Amino acid sequence: MAQLRREPIARRWVVVSTDDVKGPSDYLSFKPPYQPQTSDGPCPFCPGNEGMTPKETFSLNGAGKRWSVRVIPNKFPFFRIEGEFDRRPEGMYDVMEAIGAHEIVIEAPEHHQNLAMMEPSQIEKILFAYRERLIDLEKDRRFEQFLILKNYPGVFNRHPHSHILAMPIIPRGIDEEIWGTLDYYQRKERCIFCDIIKEEISVKKRVILETVHFLVFSPFASRYPFETWIIPKTHSSDFHRINKEEMEDLSLAMQSLFLRFHKLLSDPPYSFTLHTSPVQNRFHRSEYHWHIETRLRIGLREGFEWGTGFFVNPTPPENAAVYLREVG
Amino acid sequence: MAQLRREPIARRWVVVSTDDVKGPSDYLSFKPPYQPQTSDGPCPFCPGNEGMTPKETFSLNGAGKRWSVRVIPNKFPFFRIEGEFDRRPEGMYDVMEAIGAHEIVIEAPEHHQNLAMMEPSQIEKILFAYRERLIDLEKDRRFEQFLILKNYPGVFNRHPHSHILAMPIIPRGIDEEIWGTLDYYQRKERCIFCDIIKEEISVKKRVILETVHFLVFSPFASRYPFETWIIPKTHSSDFHRINKEEMEDLSLAMQSLFLRFHKLLSDPPYSFTLHTSPVQNRFHRSEYHWHIETRLRIGLREGFEWGTGFFVNPTPPENAAVYLREVG
Repeated sequence: MAQLRREPIARRWVVVSTDDVKGPSDYLSFKPPYQPQTSDGPCPFCPGNEGMTPKETFSLNGAGKRWSVRVIPNKFPFFRIEGEFDRRPEGMYDVMEAIGAHEIVIEAPEHHQNLAMMEPSQIEKILFAYRERLIDLEKDRRFEQFLILKNYPGVFNRHPHSHILAMPIIPRGIDEEIWGTLDYYQRKERCIFCDIIKEEISVKKRVILETVHFLVFSPFASRYPFETWIIPKTHSSDFHRINKEEMEDLSLAMQSLFLRFHKLLSDPPYSFTLHTSPVQNRFHRSEYHWHIETRLRIGLREGFEWGTGFFVNPTPPENAAVYLREVG
Repeated sequence: MAQLRREPIARRWVVVSTDDVKGPSDYLSFKPPYQPQTSDGPCPFCPGNEGMTPKETFSLNGAGKRWSVRVIPNKFPFFRIEGEFDRRPEGMYDVMEAIGAHEIVIEAPEHHQNLAMMEPSQIEKILFAYRERLIDLEKDRRFEQFLILKNYPGVFNRHPHSHILAMPIIPRGIDEEIWGTLDYYQRKERCIFCDIIKEEISVKKRVILETVHFLVFSPFASRYPFETWIIPKTHSSDFHRINKEEMEDLSLAMQSLFLRFHKLLSDPPYSFTLHTSPVQNRFHRSEYHWHIETRLRIGLREGFEWGTGFFVNPTPPENAAVYLREVG
């Protein structure tokens, strides 16, 4: 089990492992610059090795008898589904058990597949799996916030996969965004994301591509070189209300974007997160707007960003958008 | 010149380069995993090459005619000292010029020196340089916040150096901390850092070492494995009010801590930031408490942290403190 500990000054929750604890030797086994080594053993995410993973929570059939997308509980979760919150003080501090869900979406049977090279129809299946899992997890009233997250390449396993997290708190990064959208709505009675979409479509210079339902653009105050957002052009607060036609369209937008990254920066490492409205209807549907934020992990200067929450981006979004448009 | 652009949703300022702009080929020249390559040419920070850098803003004499610590304006600054803020709208967004100061403290004449191996008397000279520069920069009424920052090893140059930043805004990470301390003070009429110091000294299990004037400990909600804070035991809001005796004592604490990291994790990469009170007396001296936060750059899972501002730490601070105490 892990604990959620509240940092008392900035009032931010941190997950601290209390059973699966790592000591100095665990870090020494990573080679500088401290990248984890992927195991040489059989891949637990490959077909035929299903016995190596927990039982799936969802799967989609593929060709023959094989699955095409498979969702499993994470064997090493940040949050566990069983147990009680047990909110309590510890001295002057605050602590609770890290209750939640942490599932892995195995995105394809093929170990060496990736989103840039995938058929859009396969990406659509991944989106369908995301949606179905969120619809199911929404029933659990303990969860406040969902987050979908992907690191490419995977940190501990190169087999293409993403993470679904259901959290008992709204993490700081999402919370700031929510308060910003509420404040804007109070002042204007409009969704700030909808206004940004209008602005970007009218100004054009930061737009990378537009599909029927989605806008792909470099945000004005991009924190990272080639930071890119994918957002539905029509207001929608919850990702898991997406319909079949929109999923098909989104899969085209995603595949096109990841292929552009691949061509432009020679298969760079990246992360994306899918931000969606808090779960328990605490916020009005008119104020939040779900979207995907993508970061290429080619940045530097991490000390500064870490020390201040303040970002320095040497590639203006207008330039990034030109490169990404033209490479398409 | 760089711009400060305001991210309109979470309302966070981002520095975006607008002249010294990087395109895809700049990132391709970094080898995966996208570490910058240090130049093979002569080191501009080494004695004899002073002509390669801007004119110093401060230096301390060492043995013979040599300097022992030298401070210079950064040739590639995040913030520039010349110019006007020019706060203005750009469409629906907000932008201003990135006015400020960005100086480099060359910590020793020797190219292969580092804080773990340095004489405490040399660290004391570095601290003296920090103090003198902040006292000077404080006179410029445009600056709202100072930050001292070090990355080890340096990102673009391995010669030991740190950064002094004078910023026209209070960056988000510091702002959150300040609002937290103000809120606590309002409720309790006590400094939260002072209370944490009392708690940690009484509980003991997260203390790494204590000197006459400083406490070195693993914070309760450590975000990173072996995260460590160094804090003056007596209340003090501004680092640059430190006296000679305290600097001497702090240099001992720092050298001991960095040597412990070196021994325990085989010379790991790290960053530290020195947080000090906002400059322009906007906050009462009784509420903020300066301190140093140190992070070993051995962490993983960056996608999650990035996506959420939410940290997962597999090494509880109680365990980290035991390791760091015992290796001393």
